Amino acid sequence: MKKFRSYLYAALLMLSAPTLLAQHRDAVDTALVSKFRKEGLKNSRVMEILSMLTDMNGPRLTNSPGYKNAANYAKSALEGWGVGNVHFDSFGPFGRGWFVKKFSLQVMAPVYFSVIGYPKAWSPGVKGTHKTEAIYLDVKTEEDLEKYKGKLKGKIVLFDFPIMPKPAFKPDATRLTDSTLLKMANAAASNRSGGSRRRFAAGAPEMLTYKKWRLCESEGALAVMEGSRGSYGTFYASAATVPTDPTATGARVSAQADNAPEILPQIVVAAEHYNRLVRQLQQGLTVKLELAMETEFTKPEDGFNVIGEIPGTDKKEEVVMFGAHLDSWHSGTGTTDNAVGVAICMEAMRLLKAAGVQPSRTIRIGLWGGEEQGLLGSTGYVKKHLGERVADSVKLTAEGEKFSVYFNTDNGGGRWRGVYLQGNENVRPIFREWLKPFEKDGTSTLSLSNTGSTDHIPFDNVGLPGFQFITDPIEYFARSWHSSMDMYERAVEADLKQNAVMLATFAIGAANREGLMPRK
Amino acid sequence: MKKFRSYLYAALLMLSAPTLLAQHRDAVDTALVSKFRKEGLKNSRVMEILSMLTDMNGPRLTNSPGYKNAANYAKSALEGWGVGNVHFDSFGPFGRGWFVKKFSLQVMAPVYFSVIGYPKAWSPGVKGTHKTEAIYLDVKTEEDLEKYKGKLKGKIVLFDFPIMPKPAFKPDATRLTDSTLLKMANAAASNRSGGSRRRFAAGAPEMLTYKKWRLCESEGALAVMEGSRGSYGTFYASAATVPTDPTATGARVSAQADNAPEILPQIVVAAEHYNRLVRQLQQGLTVKLELAMETEFTKPEDGFNVIGEIPGTDKKEEVVMFGAHLDSWHSGTGTTDNAVGVAICMEAMRLLKAAGVQPSRTIRIGLWGGEEQGLLGSTGYVKKHLGERVADSVKLTAEGEKFSVYFNTDNGGGRWRGVYLQGNENVRPIFREWLKPFEKDGTSTLSLSNTGSTDHIPFDNVGLPGFQFITDPIEYFARSWHSSMDMYERAVEADLKQNAVMLATFAIGAANREGLMPRK
Repeated sequence: MKKFRSYLYAALLMLSAPTLLAQHRDAVDTALVSKFRKEGLKNSRVMEILSMLTDMNGPRLTNSPGYKNAANYAKSALEGWGVGNVHFDSFGPFGRGWFVKKFSLQVMAPVYFSVIGYPKAWSPGVKGTHKTEAIYLDVKTEEDLEKYKGKLKGKIVLFDFPIMPKPAFKPDATRLTDSTLLKMANAAASNRSGGSRRRFAAGAPEMLTYKKWRLCESEGALAVMEGSRGSYGTFYASAATVPTDPTATGARVSAQADNAPEILPQIVVAAEHYNRLVRQLQQGLTVKLELAMETEFTKPEDGFNVIGEIPGTDKKEEVVMFGAHLDSWHSGTGTTDNAVGVAICMEAMRLLKAAGVQPSRTIRIGLWGGEEQGLLGSTGYVKKHLGERVADSVKLTAEGEKFSVYFNTDNGGGRWRGVYLQGNENVRPIFREWLKPFEKDGTSTLSLSNTGSTDHIPFDNVGLPGFQFITDPIEYFARSWHSSMDMYERAVEADLKQNAVMLATFAIGAANREGLMPRK
Repeated sequence: MKKFRSYLYAALLMLSAPTLLAQHRDAVDTALVSKFRKEGLKNSRVMEILSMLTDMNGPRLTNSPGYKNAANYAKSALEGWGVGNVHFDSFGPFGRGWFVKKFSLQVMAPVYFSVIGYPKAWSPGVKGTHKTEAIYLDVKTEEDLEKYKGKLKGKIVLFDFPIMPKPAFKPDATRLTDSTLLKMANAAASNRSGGSRRRFAAGAPEMLTYKKWRLCESEGALAVMEGSRGSYGTFYASAATVPTDPTATGARVSAQADNAPEILPQIVVAAEHYNRLVRQLQQGLTVKLELAMETEFTKPEDGFNVIGEIPGTDKKEEVVMFGAHLDSWHSGTGTTDNAVGVAICMEAMRLLKAAGVQPSRTIRIGLWGGEEQGLLGSTGYVKKHLGERVADSVKLTAEGEKFSVYFNTDNGGGRWRGVYLQGNENVRPIFREWLKPFEKDGTSTLSLSNTGSTDHIPFDNVGLPGFQFITDPIEYFARSWHSSMDMYERAVEADLKQNAVMLATFAIGAANREGLMPRK
C-alpha cells in the first residue's frame, strides 16, 4: 500500500503540479493511520492488556513470579495477535527473585490500629507472628548511638525522622502547559545524556546512617521500620538497604544479588502511621506491635526481556524497535511505572498486525526486565545484540549497524505531547511529518533536549537513535511513580489509546521510510 | 481591666474629643488580645493537645474506650489549667460502645496483597482467622439476585459497584478566595437552618440495596465488603448498615443501639484495592482471602459531654459558651473532624486562664459526644439545660433565659476567615468590632447566611445565638473529613493557634459586654 502510494506520488510528481512538491518523503500514510485510529480508538484492548499486566499478574519485580506471569501473558497475547518470534531473551545474571507471602503489622498498644506498609523488596521476613515493642532511633549524632546499646534486641526499630506531609495547594494531576511545551520546543541540546533520577533527602549523613544500620544489626533488632514520603496512605517501597560502609571502595552489593549479605527485615510505612508511632514513643508510651512478615526468595537466575517482531520484507535485516520496561516495584501493581508503557507497546503491535502491515523493515517489540535496578534489561540487550562503548569509541555489531531506531515509553500514563530528540537534529523533519495526524490533539512538540533515566539511554549511549516521548505527567511524579498506589486506577484510558495509535504510526513510518533513521 | 478601661473611655467621652466618639461599646480589649496572642502564638500548646486527642487517645467513637480516654485527658488538662467545675454531663442514652481489636485482610490468591481497609463502626467481627473466597455481587436488577442463591455461604461478598477515582486536576487543599468570601459577605439570610450533610451516590435504588443485604444474610455470607470513595489508600468508614426495609415506617435502628438486630460483619476497603478484586473476579479468577477481624462491644450507656467553666463574677448566672464535638469516626484519629475544634476550644480556655481573666459572665466549654450520630451531645445538652422547641414555640429554662451565646467550631483545621451570622443581623456590629484585631490576617468576613450540620444548630433551634466560624477548608472536604487519613498531619499549626486566640477574644468580648448577645 505504502509503496504503491509512493509510486503514485512519484508519477504525480512527474506530472508536476507545483503544490505536490510539498509532499514530504516521510509523509505519513494517512489511510493506514486511519486504520490504526479506528481499531485503536474503537476496538482498543489497551485497558484489558493493562489490567492483565497489573491486576491479574502484577506487581512485576524482576524475576519474581509476577514478572514471569506477566511475561508469559505478554508472550501469549503477542503470539495470539500473530506477532512472530516471541521469546524470552536473557540479559545476563540478575540475582534472586522475591515476593511477599504475608504482611500484617498491627499496633496493639497504646491504641489499636492496623498499619499501612509493606516489606522493602528482597527483605527477609520474620518467622511466625511476632509480638514485640517499637523503639524510635532518635539519632542526630554519633554520641546518640550509645544510648541505644542494649535496647534494640528483638524490637522493631523506627529508623528515620518523621517526614511531615504538607497540604497539597497545587494539583496532583497536571498536563503540560503551552508555556512548558514552548520551553521544550526552544530548548537546546543538552549534555545530560544519562539523566538524573529524582533524589529525596536522605535524612542523615551517610556514615551516621551506616552506623545506625550496624547498631541495629549488632544489637539484634527484629526489624527496621522506615517512614515513607507520601501522604494519605500512599507509601513508597523500593529495594531493601544493604548497609555499606561509605568509605569502602568497589561496587555496592544489591539486595537481589546472589552474594548479598544477610540483612535485617525492612518495612516501609505510610507517613501518617509512622509519625503517629514516633509521637507515641516520644510521649513515653509503650508501643506494642504484632508483625507477620513472610517473604520468599527464588533461586538466582538470569534476567530476561520479552522480544517479538513483525518480520520485515525487503529490508528485514534492518530493525525498528519500540519498547517499555515490564518490571516494576512491588507494593502497588506498577501501573504508570510502567505497565502503561508495556500496554501501549503491545497495543501498538496489535494495531500493526490488525492493519495487516507488511513492513519493509522488521518491527520489534522489547519488554525489558531489571529497569528499576539500573536499566539492566535494555542495557543487556544492546550489549548482546547491537554494540557497546569501548573507551571513547563505539563498536556496533553487524545487527547494530543495521539497526534503525528505538522508541521508548516510560513516563507514566499521560498523553504524549511530542518527542525528545536527544540532540539529534536530523530526525526533526521526519518526526514533524509523523506528528501531523496528532497535532490537533495537542501532540506537536519536538524538543532538541534529552530525557534520561530509562531504556532508550543504552541505545543512545552507543550512538543508535533512541527516543522517548514528551508525556503529560498526570499524577506521575506527584503520586503514582514507585508508589503503593501505582494501580490500574491511575491510567487515563483516552491517553493510552491515543499513544498506541501514535506509536504504531511512528513504527511503520520508520519501517517503511527510505533509509535508516539518521544518527547524530 | 476591661471595666477600668470602660470607665476611662466614658470619662474621656465626657471630655468629648469627637474622634473618641468612634469607640464602639463592644471595642475589643486590645491589651488582653495582646496577652492572648503572646501566649497563644509563642507558648501555644494547641498541637500538644491535638496529639493527645488524636495520636495518644484517638480515635474517639462515642462511648468507645478512645472517647473516654480523650474525655479523661481533656478533663484533667482543663483542671490542670485551673478551669472550674469540669465534669462529664450525660446527654441521655446513647447505646453501645465499640472498638476494633484486630483487622487484617490478606489476598492470598490469585496474587498476594495486603488490603487497606477497616471494619465499619459497630460491625461484629468474625471468630478466628478465616480463609475463604470473595464473590462479587454484580446486581443491577432484582432478577440478578437469583443467580447468587446458594453461592454466598461463608464467602466475603463484594457488595458495591466499583467507584473509579479520577486524577486530581484541582488542588486538594484550598483557602477561601476573596471572591468566595465576598459572596458570603453579600449573602442574604437563608432558611436552610439545619444544613444538609453531603451525600454521595448510593449506587443502587434503596429497595434493591435492601434485598441485596437480605440475600447476603439469608445465604449466610461471612462478611460484606464495600469499596470506598476516595483514592490513594484513603478510605471512609462510618457506621455499619442496619438493613432496613425502605417501605417500613418508624425510626431506623442505628448500629450502636441496644436493640440493634444482628448484622453481618462489614468492611470498607480502599477503592484501588476493592476495584482490583472486582476486576479479578470479573476475569473469572478465584480470589482467596484471609480475614482476621475482631471487634468488641461495651455495654449500653448514656453518652456524655465534657463541660468546664471559668466562673463569672457579677453576672455569673449568665453563660457564654464555646465548644466542639469530641467524638469522631474510627478509622483515622478524627483530627480535622474534630480534634482540631476541641484543641482550639481547650487552648482558648487555657489562654483565658493564663491571662487571668475574671469575666463578668461565666465562660463555659462544651466538648460534645455523639455528634456523628446526629448532634446528640449538643442537642441533649440544650434540651437538658437551656430549653426546647415544643410545636412551634420555644420554651427556655431559667438557665436558657440567661444564656448569652454559643460559638462552635467544626469545619476542619483551617484558619477562621469570619463568622456565619445565622440570619442574626443584630450581632453584626458586635462581631465587626471583635474581628478588628484579626482583619490583617484575612479574617474579616461576616456572612448573614447559615451554616448547618453541627453543634451550634441545637442552640439556634431554640432561638439562642449559636454561631460557627467561616473556615478555610484546606483539605477538609477533599480528603480528611471522615477519612482513614484524618490524622495529626492534616492540622495546620499556624491556623489553629490563630483560631484559639480569636476564640478567646470572642469569648471574653461576649462575657464582658454590657448585655447578653442579641437574639434574632
